[in-house]
Amino acid sequence: MDIRADIEALNAILSPKSVAVIGASTTPGKVGHDIFANILKGGFTGILYPVNPGARAVLSVRAYPRIQEVPDPVDLAIVILPPQPALQAVQDAVARGVKGVVIVSAGFREVGPEGRAIEDRIVALCREAGVRVIGPNCLGVINPTPAVRLNASFSARMPKAGNISFISQSGALCTAVLDFAADRNFGFSKFISTGNKADVDELDLLLYLHQDPDTEVILLYLEELRRGPEFIRAVREITSGDFRPKPVLAIKSGRTAAGARAAASHTGSLSGTEGVYNAIFQQSGIIRVESIDELFDFATAFAYKNESELGKLRRKVPTGNRVAIVTNAGGPGIVATDMTMFSGLELAQFKEETVETLASHLPSTANLKNPVDVIGDATIDRYENALGAVIRDENVDGALVILTPQSMTNVLGTAEAIARIARRSFKPILCCFMGVIDVSAGVKYLQDRGIPVYKFPENAAKAFGALYRYSRWLNRQFLAEYKLSFDRERAAKIIADCLARGKTRLGELDGLGILEAYGFPVLPTKLSRSAEEAAAVAAEIGFPVVMKIVSEQILHKSDAGGVIVGVQTAQEARQAFETILARGRAYREDAVIEGVLVQKMASAGTEVILGLSRYPVFGPLLMFGLGGIFVEVFQDVTFRLAPIGRNEARRMVRQIRGYKLLEGFRGRPRGDIEAVEKLLVSLSHLAIDHPEIAELDINPLLVHPEGRGATAADCRMILKSQNAAA
Amino acid sequence: MDIRADIEALNAILSPKSVAVIGASTTPGKVGHDIFANILKGGFTGILYPVNPGARAVLSVRAYPRIQEVPDPVDLAIVILPPQPALQAVQDAVARGVKGVVIVSAGFREVGPEGRAIEDRIVALCREAGVRVIGPNCLGVINPTPAVRLNASFSARMPKAGNISFISQSGALCTAVLDFAADRNFGFSKFISTGNKADVDELDLLLYLHQDPDTEVILLYLEELRRGPEFIRAVREITSGDFRPKPVLAIKSGRTAAGARAAASHTGSLSGTEGVYNAIFQQSGIIRVESIDELFDFATAFAYKNESELGKLRRKVPTGNRVAIVTNAGGPGIVATDMTMFSGLELAQFKEETVETLASHLPSTANLKNPVDVIGDATIDRYENALGAVIRDENVDGALVILTPQSMTNVLGTAEAIARIARRSFKPILCCFMGVIDVSAGVKYLQDRGIPVYKFPENAAKAFGALYRYSRWLNRQFLAEYKLSFDRERAAKIIADCLARGKTRLGELDGLGILEAYGFPVLPTKLSRSAEEAAAVAAEIGFPVVMKIVSEQILHKSDAGGVIVGVQTAQEARQAFETILARGRAYREDAVIEGVLVQKMASAGTEVILGLSRYPVFGPLLMFGLGGIFVEVFQDVTFRLAPIGRNEARRMVRQIRGYKLLEGFRGRPRGDIEAVEKLLVSLSHLAIDHPEIAELDINPLLVHPEGRGATAADCRMILKSQNAAA
Repeated sequence: MDIRADIEALNAILSPKSVAVIGASTTPGKVGHDIFANILKGGFTGILYPVNPGARAVLSVRAYPRIQEVPDPVDLAIVILPPQPALQAVQDAVARGVKGVVIVSAGFREVGPEGRAIEDRIVALCREAGVRVIGPNCLGVINPTPAVRLNASFSARMPKAGNISFISQSGALCTAVLDFAADRNFGFSKFISTGNKADVDELDLLLYLHQDPDTEVILLYLEELRRGPEFIRAVREITSGDFRPKPVLAIKSGRTAAGARAAASHTGSLSGTEGVYNAIFQQSGIIRVESIDELFDFATAFAYKNESELGKLRRKVPTGNRVAIVTNAGGPGIVATDMTMFSGLELAQFKEETVETLASHLPSTANLKNPVDVIGDATIDRYENALGAVIRDENVDGALVILTPQSMTNVLGTAEAIARIARRSFKPILCCFMGVIDVSAGVKYLQDRGIPVYKFPENAAKAFGALYRYSRWLNRQFLAEYKLSFDRERAAKIIADCLARGKTRLGELDGLGILEAYGFPVLPTKLSRSAEEAAAVAAEIGFPVVMKIVSEQILHKSDAGGVIVGVQTAQEARQAFETILARGRAYREDAVIEGVLVQKMASAGTEVILGLSRYPVFGPLLMFGLGGIFVEVFQDVTFRLAPIGRNEARRMVRQIRGYKLLEGFRGRPRGDIEAVEKLLVSLSHLAIDHPEIAELDINPLLVHPEGRGATAADCRMILKSQNAAA
Repeated sequence: MDIRADIEALNAILSPKSVAVIGASTTPGKVGHDIFANILKGGFTGILYPVNPGARAVLSVRAYPRIQEVPDPVDLAIVILPPQPALQAVQDAVARGVKGVVIVSAGFREVGPEGRAIEDRIVALCREAGVRVIGPNCLGVINPTPAVRLNASFSARMPKAGNISFISQSGALCTAVLDFAADRNFGFSKFISTGNKADVDELDLLLYLHQDPDTEVILLYLEELRRGPEFIRAVREITSGDFRPKPVLAIKSGRTAAGARAAASHTGSLSGTEGVYNAIFQQSGIIRVESIDELFDFATAFAYKNESELGKLRRKVPTGNRVAIVTNAGGPGIVATDMTMFSGLELAQFKEETVETLASHLPSTANLKNPVDVIGDATIDRYENALGAVIRDENVDGALVILTPQSMTNVLGTAEAIARIARRSFKPILCCFMGVIDVSAGVKYLQDRGIPVYKFPENAAKAFGALYRYSRWLNRQFLAEYKLSFDRERAAKIIADCLARGKTRLGELDGLGILEAYGFPVLPTKLSRSAEEAAAVAAEIGFPVVMKIVSEQILHKSDAGGVIVGVQTAQEARQAFETILARGRAYREDAVIEGVLVQKMASAGTEVILGLSRYPVFGPLLMFGLGGIFVEVFQDVTFRLAPIGRNEARRMVRQIRGYKLLEGFRGRPRGDIEAVEKLLVSLSHLAIDHPEIAELDINPLLVHPEGRGATAADCRMILKSQNAAA
């Protein structure tokens, strides 16, 4: 379906000219009654037709026994009927020429195969007719825009019109959010409960809202996605493309639920669905929030546009992270300073002329440095002059204004002064008016003008931090891609050979071969099957060597004492061979020990881990993190869905806390970071080219000093086959 | 001053029978008018006397020119006058026999030396008379208890009476908190703004509120403390002693402000004031919260007591961390499950009979496992039966009940059912009613009965987590102390010798000597001054050895390439000596190189860091964390103020994330954890016995496998002397 047709179909649902409510009821308390009543009382600007074979009218509106009898064209059919009659109703509606359908009723896919079959038939017949369906099992849709005013929902409360749209997979949450929004004087553009997502899903709606001129910020409550790489590509365009980029904020629940996934690799056990969703959010530029409060806090800041004076409206996103704080109380100023730091921001250093300007306007007891303390008895003038001075400073990218109501404080007047300054600047100004009732006039004044205002400084500072993160995303650099080439055939051959032999758990011998084909520097490695052979092989490779057990049953070799490092002589090699064999047998009686690997000792480097696992729907998930034994203790890892290029690899490497170790630190040389980035891109190609690789840990990859590359010192690979699970 | 007299004096301030407002004014808008009006309109149950030499009456109440003229005894004088007249007023008040003074006016210590002098004189004269002073520069005090009803504050709003007391160092925050509390239907027992804390400080008030029968939970907003070890000792008794333990929740701001402290040691640079306050909170059992929202969320849970049926009131603190969730919506149930995990809780596993009971009461589509989903159309019965069943289960320590208003939901009825069950159980039941207005009747019903109710499941789960943390604190084990002995004289001698030589930065030679005297196992170490000597010393000690540069100018030896490990032969030792010297000179031209240390190579172990720094007022601060190069990357460290004993040392060791490494992990043996605990206690003694040691890093301390102790492999020590700063 092309995007134009899609927009038209969704327009028919979200901004219809005429609506038929099939299953409209005359009995208060019934869903079919309440939804009809809500649309009617909400002041819908189009025409409303109740459809009910047993009623002459519903709430004084003439009813029709079937949609066929409705004398005019109908854009949207809202269906509130049990599954079987719903199917009939949708058939009738499609025949009647509706452009969109919303099915509110439950009892479909979520209750079992029968419901699912009906749901599938409904979707099939609508798709054929080019009609889109929202639901079933949803709360409905709301469009409070004055030109439409459609409240097709359970909720008696029509929210204020605004420029924020909300898509929710949970109906229960919708109700709570509407209540909460009313409490915070929050306006919506579109409000959509997706329910079972039988047809229309988040991505359809995101694409629609991207085009919607009334939507500036998109909020998403998510339980699961059914599209991965496609979702990333499309949403990346929405959040940062050339055409009207719009911020998308998401809450994703179900974080720990799938945490217990049993997996044979570190990557597998660390990733979980949490890893997948974090990857999707990062790669698509979605800003993840942790709570409903935070969702509202951030949305307010993102919806904030200039009230003009400077010409065209523009979103107030800071171009840097240097924040000025103006406050009339010390304590909250300290809190704001703290949170500023925690949110990735900096306190701006004022220019000399700014300090002079502040000094000329403020009393001698005021603090002229950032945070600027205009003192408890501050009047409107003092706020206006101080804020005006700091916002003009070239070293300031935005401001937080904190007001605590004190006896001299003119709350409304200060709000007006802030708005005057905000109108003249593109820099974001976020306010914190501390108090609920005493400050209400000022808060309302600011809210009505879209100027973000919070109850506590920590919320304002965190919201500013989110604005800055979005600005960094919008303005990210694009480095030219690496030119890399791989020996795809060689890797494919090793994989095919292993699978032919029924071997699905690959150790270093085969695994490093595959990695080598994709440009990973590996260490000279040979298998020995006797103590004598070990000594000979070691001599050939050159001392010192590392010796490691080879057994399909022993994946975590060091757990079994199966690794001996620093073997210096032939005699030591013989002895190490015997020791490793004895330990392996003691560790697991049934282990089939193929022999002992003799490997050149790697030169020193920082240990990192590169990994790969796969998820249904989402495909290959890449992991990067600090390696060695620290991977499990600190779980200092980050994820991306393949394919990734150089730029995404760069962000991955820079994202972990342990990046500091790679940067060079306390006499340690800077690591070869570019080599790691290249290898991440190589890993992405490997993952895409060879779907047989189900899981892979390269742990450790030793990152040598700058210019000296990196070495894959160990790896563990699981190939996909019938018995790969375990 | 003994505690009885103190309580009486503070009683006179917080529950006075008669109050004189000195500086009461007839001019609305003036502080002296507003505070008088607030007390009068607040319905104070005692007698109120305005004192004003120029007015016959204030708000129709007969005024007195001076407090001496007041015909009856006066308990409390509230002073609203500039510093100089305030001093006179306090003199008069004390002469008149008042028992307590609150000075609201500003202009004292916070504006300069003159103000400070007056403040000091006021305190001195009050102390002499046994009169206690709150303020100056504060918002006042409030006691909404029906027997008192004193609103001696700027705030026109008298909060509801309740069992939570609030102590704030920031007046600005007080106003905001009062507004916020009104919004959340929150009741207070005492509300105190401490201002400059010239006399009465938090600790005085904490001790008072501990005794106060109307206070169940104490909230603290803190900017700085002026007492350290004393505070810890006293508050530990309040939060977990035998006499009526009460939870103390604190917000501390100013977290990043002092982060930039320049320090010569890791411990010094990592600790900052943040380290000190975290230590104080942990050692005294104060629960730190991150925001005002969280303060209210947690306070509600802690104030929650049984409404009887089970006899005496008891705080509802869970005895374990196994939570049952009952919800009528899937999404919020998932969120609650997530947050439960994040908050250190577990989902309870129900017993078979519980599942049977649930099955008999719930429809077949309900989820009988935890979280229990009673389905969207749940009636009162279904909630009551499900909650009743899970709360009776021996495997359940408490419950979260989630309600989202849907068409069938009887919100008030469900609240009543929850209250019925809560009355019969000591297990905490926390509720989440999602929505602001639709659920208001139920929310109010629960609030009025003290049953915690939240807007979102994440808040409820976090509050439950805080209750559990407090339960763990209340029920912590006390292991018998170690019997340790130290060679205090030897350490004192080394320190005195160094100071005599003007040496304040001690390397390993002297430092390890001091540590050895306190029971730290150290490595055989000798200084060599020539390549030949190095070879000889190394042979004497036995190969392999480590060689390290010795120079007072080079504190971070590895930064300078001044450490060579694994020296195996005399020839290598000679060569290493020359290399180290060359590198040291290249690193810092002016470095005076004393020689090269030759040290026995330590046997393998997990690297941890033990450290010591000192703060004015608070004294020695001990640090423990993961050592080596990871200390700065992950800052996985924890702090305590000395002295500590075995139990505190135990908690320190178990608190860091890297504890997993010490526990044994992936084939690594379990480390000698008890040895580390003993050494932490030894370090505490060292810190107390030798105040000359200003800073100390033992990094790394190598923790060997269980039973094999730990070795101090390197140390850095700064002694206190005139030029120790730098």
